[in-house]
Amino acid sequence: MKEGSIYKPRAISGYPEWLPEYRAVELSWLDSIRKVFESFGYCSIETPAVEELQVLTSKGESSDKEIYCISRLNGEEKNAELGLHYDLTVPFARYVAQHYNDLDFPFKRYQMQKVWRGERPQEGRFREFYQCDVDVVNHESLPLFFDIEIATIMYQALLSLPLGPLDIKLSNRKILEGFLAGLKIENPNEAIRVLDKLDKIGVDGVYKILNQSLSEEQSKQCLELAKIQSNNFVKEVTNLGVKNDTLSQGLDELSEVFSALDQKSFSIDLSIARGFDYYSGTIFEAKLKNYPHFSTVAAGGRYDKLASSFIKQDLPGIGMSIGLTRIFSKLLAEGKIEAKAKSPTQVLVSWLEADQKEKVQKISEKLRAKGINVEAYHCVDKLKKQIKYADRKGISYIIFPASSLNPKDEVKNMQTGEQTSIDIENWTI
Amino acid sequence: MKEGSIYKPRAISGYPEWLPEYRAVELSWLDSIRKVFESFGYCSIETPAVEELQVLTSKGESSDKEIYCISRLNGEEKNAELGLHYDLTVPFARYVAQHYNDLDFPFKRYQMQKVWRGERPQEGRFREFYQCDVDVVNHESLPLFFDIEIATIMYQALLSLPLGPLDIKLSNRKILEGFLAGLKIENPNEAIRVLDKLDKIGVDGVYKILNQSLSEEQSKQCLELAKIQSNNFVKEVTNLGVKNDTLSQGLDELSEVFSALDQKSFSIDLSIARGFDYYSGTIFEAKLKNYPHFSTVAAGGRYDKLASSFIKQDLPGIGMSIGLTRIFSKLLAEGKIEAKAKSPTQVLVSWLEADQKEKVQKISEKLRAKGINVEAYHCVDKLKKQIKYADRKGISYIIFPASSLNPKDEVKNMQTGEQTSIDIENWTI
Repeated sequence: MKEGSIYKPRAISGYPEWLPEYRAVELSWLDSIRKVFESFGYCSIETPAVEELQVLTSKGESSDKEIYCISRLNGEEKNAELGLHYDLTVPFARYVAQHYNDLDFPFKRYQMQKVWRGERPQEGRFREFYQCDVDVVNHESLPLFFDIEIATIMYQALLSLPLGPLDIKLSNRKILEGFLAGLKIENPNEAIRVLDKLDKIGVDGVYKILNQSLSEEQSKQCLELAKIQSNNFVKEVTNLGVKNDTLSQGLDELSEVFSALDQKSFSIDLSIARGFDYYSGTIFEAKLKNYPHFSTVAAGGRYDKLASSFIKQDLPGIGMSIGLTRIFSKLLAEGKIEAKAKSPTQVLVSWLEADQKEKVQKISEKLRAKGINVEAYHCVDKLKKQIKYADRKGISYIIFPASSLNPKDEVKNMQTGEQTSIDIENWTI
Repeated sequence: MKEGSIYKPRAISGYPEWLPEYRAVELSWLDSIRKVFESFGYCSIETPAVEELQVLTSKGESSDKEIYCISRLNGEEKNAELGLHYDLTVPFARYVAQHYNDLDFPFKRYQMQKVWRGERPQEGRFREFYQCDVDVVNHESLPLFFDIEIATIMYQALLSLPLGPLDIKLSNRKILEGFLAGLKIENPNEAIRVLDKLDKIGVDGVYKILNQSLSEEQSKQCLELAKIQSNNFVKEVTNLGVKNDTLSQGLDELSEVFSALDQKSFSIDLSIARGFDYYSGTIFEAKLKNYPHFSTVAAGGRYDKLASSFIKQDLPGIGMSIGLTRIFSKLLAEGKIEAKAKSPTQVLVSWLEADQKEKVQKISEKLRAKGINVEAYHCVDKLKKQIKYADRKGISYIIFPASSLNPKDEVKNMQTGEQTSIDIENWTI
């Protein structure tokens, strides 16, 4: 670029960024979620943005297209072996395998980081976005206790955000798999993928596709199962007359998990399958009741082998992921995010006369020592201008240090307009 | 990768990642720094990891080599126009220019994010690392008040970390520049760059290089100035007999700023120049007294035109950056980082008998509602095993819900070993 010329920067499609008053909201969401995660004793880890391509592609070809590789702009060295992570599950699996001997099991971790995907941007899809993940893995086996815990954490984390009512669907992959096995269906994954679309393409649509490879009876039975959304699911499934051990185990597990969860927000839906082949037990997905057509905002489930690409040990686990940026940008677009103040400042200390300089600093320091966020006004200025400044930045209190105008220190409450004299040593917000 | 084969992942050179007990320390550092930034009323912003290459290279050719470009692994679309940011200053400048009409000035922001540089990794150099930046910019002019504030924030942020004594050097670019102009030196930037190396190559080394392009008298005078490190700097500089308006202004500014700062930790050093050509006034850099040979850990200064590549308006500002990862990894390597507990759990609720299940959950929920981080033990297990679990994870308290063994709920303090009966409703840590 030539010296002195101006390049007008543009927003880059798919890479959201917020103004301070909305970033403050996003930050408070991140804080809330972290608080819930930690309240259940999950520890923070952070992995680099970058992984070896061999690690990123270990799950198979389906995700390759979405990976961003990195390379040096003027680099002599070839460096196309690295890419940005596209989720937090693969890095977590790699982390557990790599640090296996240094971790304590069951290993309970959370991870809140940005991920990158080379997708074509569209509503609700981003190329850079936050995910907030919680997972627990153990050697060999992991009690059903954690299925309940992870579903509860997801629920409470979402509840800590102003999202309105939630609609969380719950199922267990063993039910679908066992049922299909009981029906002697040879390609269960294909049928599962179709049934997972029930709420998108409807009963007739699903039947049509199923019937291309399954018998009428099989297709009908599959649909009957997938339609079950009742608390009475054990009886309803049993009434369909299919017998299979995996199916029975799935029903037992789902009963135990469901009965332990808040039944106002969780409901049974035997059609959900959470796409990915690696889920093997409990699964759940959350939507916002106010936006039934908007995609899933958080989801998770149980898997048998977390890190099977990287380590021989079986590491069963259960986890979930909240699509923070997706939710945030949706509510922002719907006008449902109330902007916060443009700054974290709680108190402005005004500066009206030149000789107040030291006093302004002293008061500011004293209040900061009490844990209050304080701005000292940055120059001698007119009263009106300083009040306007506090107003614009959403600052709640202005303190007027003693001066020729007011013999005592005073505080103005910006909301009520009330102004009273105070003793700084004892005053707090 | 073939199904079923194992790929043993390796650490990627230059991309640090920590075990949970050290990540907990890093997270507490990030929290501490954020708290200091917010206590002065600076707002958070976050910019995408990615910027247009035209934005990243706007500062000139010197930094091009360090930039990582991104491209889609299997992408048809050409996408080499984007790169990862290598600092937070360029993204900040771009942000201010792009959102100029939506921001309030003086605009006070902080930004704590990872940045990426395609450097050859070596001790204290990383390819991915955290920077913690604070800046304030204004239209047209910015009072000297903020020079003091930013230096104070840097000082307090560093002070909030367990770094031992600090050595912060302070100067003002106008002094060097005015002095050189007063000496009629034609290429001042070259001389400034050489003088900045005084503590590395010593008086003789600097003199030799200076004398290649300057007269003996000029070289000697430059060195005399650069050697000044005394609180009495105004008099010492004046005694050198060079007269120049910019020099006088620099001396006035430095006097005012220095007198307002904690003189135990700040000291004058007229040799420092902070390399970058864009600094134009106050400059400061911090080192750790315990590691005098270790590089600068935080630095900052005043600049005239933050976003001159992106916007016509003059935006003078002052800011500073803390190299968090660099400091953290240095102290870790020196064995000076005390690991935290492996989990944020404060209380473990034990589960010794099957029929305690509901009680364990209820107690856990009650304590979480009080803001305590609680793990419910995940299965019925031997007492010894549960105590060992708490011990390994660094959990401070174990609660034993009432059972056949203990008629009342009890708590064990893991540090003292003391065990007493409690009333859960009133108990807290």
